[in-house]
Parts: sequence; C-alpha cells; structure tokens
Amino acid sequence: MKRSRPARCLTVREAFITIAEYGEFALIAAIQKVLPGNAGVIVGIGDDAAVLRAPDGRFVATTDMLIEGRHFRREWSQPREIGGKAAARNLADIAAMGARPTALLVSFAGPGDLEVGWVLDLVAGIGDEASAAGAAVAGGDTSSADVVMLAVTALGDLAGTPAVTRAGARPGDVVAVSGTLGSAAAGLAMLRAGLAPRDPGLEALIAAHRKPTPPYSAGPEAAALGATAMIDVSDGLIADVGHIASASGVLIELQLAAITDELVAPRQSLARAAESLGGDADWQRWVLTGGDDHALVATFPAGATLPQRWAVIGHATQGQGVVVDGRRWLGAGGWEHFLT
Amino acid sequence: MKRSRPARCLTVREAFITIAEYGEFALIAAIQKVLPGNAGVIVGIGDDAAVLRAPDGRFVATTDMLIEGRHFRREWSQPREIGGKAAARNLADIAAMGARPTALLVSFAGPGDLEVGWVLDLVAGIGDEASAAGAAVAGGDTSSADVVMLAVTALGDLAGTPAVTRAGARPGDVVAVSGTLGSAAAGLAMLRAGLAPRDPGLEALIAAHRKPTPPYSAGPEAAALGATAMIDVSDGLIADVGHIASASGVLIELQLAAITDELVAPRQSLARAAESLGGDADWQRWVLTGGDDHALVATFPAGATLPQRWAVIGHATQGQGVVVDGRRWLGAGGWEHFLT
Repeated sequence: MKRSRPARCLTVREAFITIAEYGEFALIAAIQKVLPGNAGVIVGIGDDAAVLRAPDGRFVATTDMLIEGRHFRREWSQPREIGGKAAARNLADIAAMGARPTALLVSFAGPGDLEVGWVLDLVAGIGDEASAAGAAVAGGDTSSADVVMLAVTALGDLAGTPAVTRAGARPGDVVAVSGTLGSAAAGLAMLRAGLAPRDPGLEALIAAHRKPTPPYSAGPEAAALGATAMIDVSDGLIADVGHIASASGVLIELQLAAITDELVAPRQSLARAAESLGGDADWQRWVLTGGDDHALVATFPAGATLPQRWAVIGHATQGQGVVVDGRRWLGAGGWEHFLT
Repeated sequence: MKRSRPARCLTVREAFITIAEYGEFALIAAIQKVLPGNAGVIVGIGDDAAVLRAPDGRFVATTDMLIEGRHFRREWSQPREIGGKAAARNLADIAAMGARPTALLVSFAGPGDLEVGWVLDLVAGIGDEASAAGAAVAGGDTSSADVVMLAVTALGDLAGTPAVTRAGARPGDVVAVSGTLGSAAAGLAMLRAGLAPRDPGLEALIAAHRKPTPPYSAGPEAAALGATAMIDVSDGLIADVGHIASASGVLIELQLAAITDELVAPRQSLARAAESLGGDADWQRWVLTGGDDHALVATFPAGATLPQRWAVIGHATQGQGVVVDGRRWLGAGGWEHFLT
C-alpha cells in the first residue's frame, strides 16, 4: 500500500507560511505531491473533471460535508485525523453498498491564515485513508472560508455484484456486524469532559473518535456472501438498524449480550471510560446509540456461513422497528418495557 | 423536460417554519419531493450511496463548493438562482470534458433559522438546472452551519468518445467559443455598485451573474467534432485559454475583434453597463478576464467544420502562453506591448 509522507517533502517555508501567502495554484500543486498515485484513474487532478473506470457498467457514489465546530475541532484532532475521518465516513458508505472504493473527490475550504503544512497534513490524512480502502484521490477544489470545511465524494465499483441496499432484509435473515461499536462515542464523551487518559484502552477510544477504522473490505465480502441489506453505523446501532427495518418492512430483534460482547464492543475499555466520567455515563448506551464508528451491519439469509469478523447480533422477523431483548429503545426516554 | 414546482407542493407551514423546527428527516423527505424524477438512476436518494449507470465503462466526475459571502449573497440572489448556479458550475465542467451530465450529488449546510421554503427553492433551482442539462439529482447530505454552503458533485457519461482534456491542442488548431463572455462579470460589477437597472439588456447581465446558462450540449458536440482540447470559462477567457496553452504546450493567439463580436459577447449591453458605472469600467476587460459565464472554449483541427454556435476566436501555434492581437495581457498591469 502506498503511503504519502508529506513531512519529508515539505520545505520549512511550505510548512509554516499561510495558505493565503502561498496562493491557490501553489497549494494545489503541493497537494498533488502528497497524494498517493492514481494508477487506476484515466484523467486525474488538474483538468475540468476526472475520468474514472467503471468496469461493470455501473458505479456507486456518495458525498458528505465535514464542518469545523460541528464535526471536528482543530484543538481536539490533528489535521491528519480530520482528513482521515472525512475520507472514512464516505468510504464506509461505499463499502455499505457492497462496493469497493475506487476514488475520492475532495473540496477543501479554510481561512487564509491556515499554515500550508496543516493543510498538507489534512490532505495526507485523506490520501492515507483512501489508500487503506484501495482508492485514489482523483480531483477536488479549494476555496476560502471562515472555518475549515471538507466535502468528500467517494466513488466505488460493485464488481458485478448487486448493490446491497437497506431494503432487502427478509423475515428469517440473521443480522451481523463487522467492526466495533461504541468507541467513538466514548472517546467524544471523554474529550468533551476534558479527560486525557494515559490508559491505552481509553486512548484507543479517543483515537476512534478522531479517526474511525471502518472494515472496508467487509462490505464487498458481505455482498459476495449474499447479504440482503447493509448499512454503516453512523447515527448509532439502533437508529441505523432501524433504517434497514424501515426500508425492508421487517422487525429486527437484537440480543444485548451479543452486541455488548467483546467481539463487537471493547467492553472493558468502555466500562473504564464510563467509570472515569462518573455520574450518568453508561457504556451500553454508547454501544447502542453511539455513531461515528462506521461498523457495517448487514442481514444475511439464515443459512449463510459467516467469516469470524461478522458477529451475529440478532435476526429479522415479521413486524416493524427494532427491539433489543424484546424491549424498544425510546432514545432519551430509555426503554419501553412492554411491547405493543 | 421535467420541471419541479415546489410552490404548488408546499404547505404554508412548510414554507415559513425554519429548518431547525422542521428537522433533518422531514427536510430530506421534502427535498426529495421537489426534485425531478430519477429514471436513469439505479439506486437514488435515501440509501448509503447512489448507484448509477456507466454505459461505456467510464464516467466523468467533478466537484466544487459554493459558500455564502464568497460565491453568492443571499441579498443579491434568489435561492433558486443560487441552487442553479451551484449546479451549473459543475455541470459545465462535465460538458467541458466532452461528456453528457447524468447526475448530481449535493451536500447542503445552512443555519437552523433558514426557512424551509427557502431551502426547497434552492433545491428546486438545483433540480431545474440538472434537468436542463439532462441530469438527475441522485443523492446528497444535509448539515447545519453558520452560513449557507453547497458542495455539488456532477457526474457524466462520455458515450464512447475520448475525454477532451486541456492537453491536446496542437499548433494549427483553431480556437472557438460557444456561449457568452463578460456578462456575469458586468452583472457582478453592477450589483457591487448597487445599481438596479431597468434596461432589459443590463438586467440580463445581472441575471447571468446570478445564474449562468452554460451551453451544455455544445460539450459532447465538440467531442464529436474532434475537439483536441476544451475548458469552461470560469476564471476568465485569458486565464482559461492559458490553461489549455500551458497543458498543451502551445501558444494561443486570439483576435480581439472576434472575441468582442456580438456572436460571443453582448457588446452593446456590456458597453452600456460600463457607461452606467462610469470611471474605470472597461467592458472589454470583462470579456477578456471575467469568469463565471461558463462558456466553453475548445480547439479543433484546422479543417473542422463548426456549427454556428462555435465562433472561431483564434488559433494555436508554436510557443507558449496567450496573446490577443499579438499582445500579452498582464492582468492588473494591462497589456505587454512587446512580445518576448
């Protein structure tokens, strides 16, 4: 895997002058240098648009925006982590369709007094995450703005498999998760409380908030295994499983013991994080409702043989909505104890 | 062509409540209703990602961001125009590769006190411009932010033709333009000066700043005619022709009389606009350096027979850079009178 290494390429001047002093064209040229190679791209950065391969006659595309103060804070994250997170959110959406990410397009905007080195570290974070998912950075755009903003578009290839939407789950399917749950929410709670733990388990939770590590290759794997529906966990497990239940017209029954198993959630670290925060902190709530880990949740036909990284956490049945051990989760209201 | 008509679908409540009161999911549902149909889209809005057709095994992709206060002002433009402009900028980039636009992805962010009706008008403007170019709106994302921001990704299909990059111009090629030059710059100058002219010619210049009308179908037409290089005029004619000259390694010689002909520039309106502004206003400068009209400029082999909407304005030869009637344009410094 190619890794970009901007720290070695930057001159001292480039690292510390501002992007306003450096100028747009110099910045774009420097950005191109820190990005990984684009072997799979027909026309890459520098023309009106990129031209990309779509070997099976279709492609997958998604976009979202990351805004300073809403989605990250410069004082809580390194630029490399912010870039990595912006890329990961979108790459995970591609994987959640059962596709392999192929390319990113990135729009960057920020204040003129940002240091060039900061921006290039951000871009290197995007490039590294793209490489980790097997994708190139094929194009983009820069503007000025009062705060840092990133709009990332991710593109992917289904390699001949049907797209796995949210709408295909059927009664009888099993529900399985690949990746971890609750870490990013626990890390955010500790950052908000001003905690700077020296415990490696708790540091890992903070790192998961700063830059998630979605299991990209599990997406196409699920498609190949016959997944009937899939989503990535960005809003929280119950909310996102709820999107599958709603789009598919099924009831999804989850087992709390399976969701909170060490296979899925780092329960010991989560419990210690909750303890360090005291008061109302509840690590199971992070697992059930915490977003931003970008685990993949998929439904499979009951007989499917799943690789170890897919942990079964429940099943689909007739009905609607989501229950955990037979109870409905009412958000801030906690559990509804009697099913209707 | 399908046209969206949000004014008829909106209830009074929807038109005047704020997007914060309305909520994200209601807003997304309302946005879907005002968008044109998605017949060509395999999976559209509402899943983790869109799935789109790429009939010739490749696709074209571009993205940029429009930020309130930098690219538009809410007091100078209607929301429908802002949406249309955000779409047009990106659709023109697809056309400039010789491709037919097929789909847009749109990320929207804005303050919670925006009225729902304002946002739906913005979205309708995006949908109308997409329809005008033959494209669907296939996906997107909404966030909150202190100012209105739009990140648009446009996607397109080359229909078997080679992509027309900036790099293929050869000595001997003719240079031609389709679309108009100078209008948007003149309109912006009048808005900045606080002018509100009642002259239809001048109103058209202001309208061109608010929402350009790129000649989308001229892009694939140029590709079919054998265009060797192409770009859309977003930074200004001389700057953008300069990008072709630089990428192709040629000198481009333009003729001022051809550029300022009524076929290319609305010279009478431009001259009246300059007169109404007085002082240093120079309408030829708008034509040579004004961006945002999104005309297409392409180079063609010398023998090519061009349809009437392609006006020949110069040719490529050995050398580098751009000259107009033999002189180099030095930006703020005006003309360089002796060639080096």
